[in-house]
Amino acid sequence: MTGQNGRSDSEFIYGINPVKEALKAGRVRELYISSSRKKGLNEILQLSKELNIPLRIVEERFFSSRFPKGHQSIGALVRKKRLTDTAGLLKKVSDRSSCLFLLLDEVEDTRNFGAILRVAEAGGVDGVIIQRRRQAGITPDVVKASAGAFEYVDIAEENNIKYAINLLKEEGFRLIALEAEGEKLLWDVELRGRIGLIIGSEGRGIRETVLRLADEIIKIPMLGKVNSLNVSVAAGIAIYEVLRQKTGRSHES
Amino acid sequence: MTGQNGRSDSEFIYGINPVKEALKAGRVRELYISSSRKKGLNEILQLSKELNIPLRIVEERFFSSRFPKGHQSIGALVRKKRLTDTAGLLKKVSDRSSCLFLLLDEVEDTRNFGAILRVAEAGGVDGVIIQRRRQAGITPDVVKASAGAFEYVDIAEENNIKYAINLLKEEGFRLIALEAEGEKLLWDVELRGRIGLIIGSEGRGIRETVLRLADEIIKIPMLGKVNSLNVSVAAGIAIYEVLRQKTGRSHES
Repeated sequence: MTGQNGRSDSEFIYGINPVKEALKAGRVRELYISSSRKKGLNEILQLSKELNIPLRIVEERFFSSRFPKGHQSIGALVRKKRLTDTAGLLKKVSDRSSCLFLLLDEVEDTRNFGAILRVAEAGGVDGVIIQRRRQAGITPDVVKASAGAFEYVDIAEENNIKYAINLLKEEGFRLIALEAEGEKLLWDVELRGRIGLIIGSEGRGIRETVLRLADEIIKIPMLGKVNSLNVSVAAGIAIYEVLRQKTGRSHES
Repeated sequence: MTGQNGRSDSEFIYGINPVKEALKAGRVRELYISSSRKKGLNEILQLSKELNIPLRIVEERFFSSRFPKGHQSIGALVRKKRLTDTAGLLKKVSDRSSCLFLLLDEVEDTRNFGAILRVAEAGGVDGVIIQRRRQAGITPDVVKASAGAFEYVDIAEENNIKYAINLLKEEGFRLIALEAEGEKLLWDVELRGRIGLIIGSEGRGIRETVLRLADEIIKIPMLGKVNSLNVSVAAGIAIYEVLRQKTGRSHES
């Protein structure tokens, strides 16, 4: 399947949850199941039947040769998901005084990127902005690590997230950078309104030139000796703090 | 290196952070570095020199044949870390009215287990209780995923975490289970005092028989369609909510 521009607009994904969610999202063109796979596929088979998706029964090595462990002997050929840009994301929230975009500054690991999409979807993030380069791309591993949440997150791609930051500022967003060297604890900063949350890469954090564009730099308190968090865990903690403040929740004993 | 019981008490770990932290923790017996590895090892080489650790320069394939990607061409033969048991953990906090233990109910993925240890260490968790079986064991991959935090987390191993739950209850702990089907949002529950936080496995969550022992079942609110979180992300959000309540932090605008 090749688009007009000569590049394929199909790709493979694998794993039960990714395939199930891609079916629901209407992206699946062909379903691939191992001849030895028996259990746990009722919902997927039912869905694909309703949608008239061609089913291919293949040898187990069809999966083992293409995908890493965790493929669960199921895959699908899907239409590539269309990404948007920052302007597209902004259009979606133009009438909202409260929203949250995530900006990833060169997150490199596919599993981390997928886990960030997963917590972004669960935590009500309105869009994720990534860079075209020096950033984990959209791969089957990312979709797998997102447990299918990839389908429901609006992702904007830019040549440089600094461009996105400036666009967001013009639209009244406050840009909050999450960094180990942050000035304030995330709990002490108001995270309501239109927020752009910047998350850095695994190794180097947020680039200095990006950090300078932030309105505030917050940190997650660290009580240990190692004092670093997995980037998807850190993103999750910050996303849910935004959500907590938004809902006005605070337990009082 | 074989102990009196005939089992080796040495094992390999890999990666810069794990090796660095194991050096600081005094567990390293031999340091292994690839002949082609040049940069970023100053601190480790300095530390190992001070500690008189034998240095082995080996071929790159020494690492590629033993470890997954991400080994960073460095490894170490270390003394196995001694685990404790629940009674041992309790002794440590006997005089404290406020503390947090994590109980893992069959977390299976090594990377998740490592990421949980990492956020547990950063978030001030006082101990992690795991089951001997049907739980990711202590492997080099776990140590790697913990970014070295493994060294500083007290880990107790039990045949069944239900036993640990009962011991904790006798010592005045409230047992809080984190489950997608929880009754209350984590923000609405008081998480102060002596808390045992139960985290379930990736696929099945917390076993029904364990859930029944919990004093309260809390959930992280989910706003999306997929509505599941990576277990280490979920653990991180809950650990930091406990910490937030403990420090009495709550932003008021």
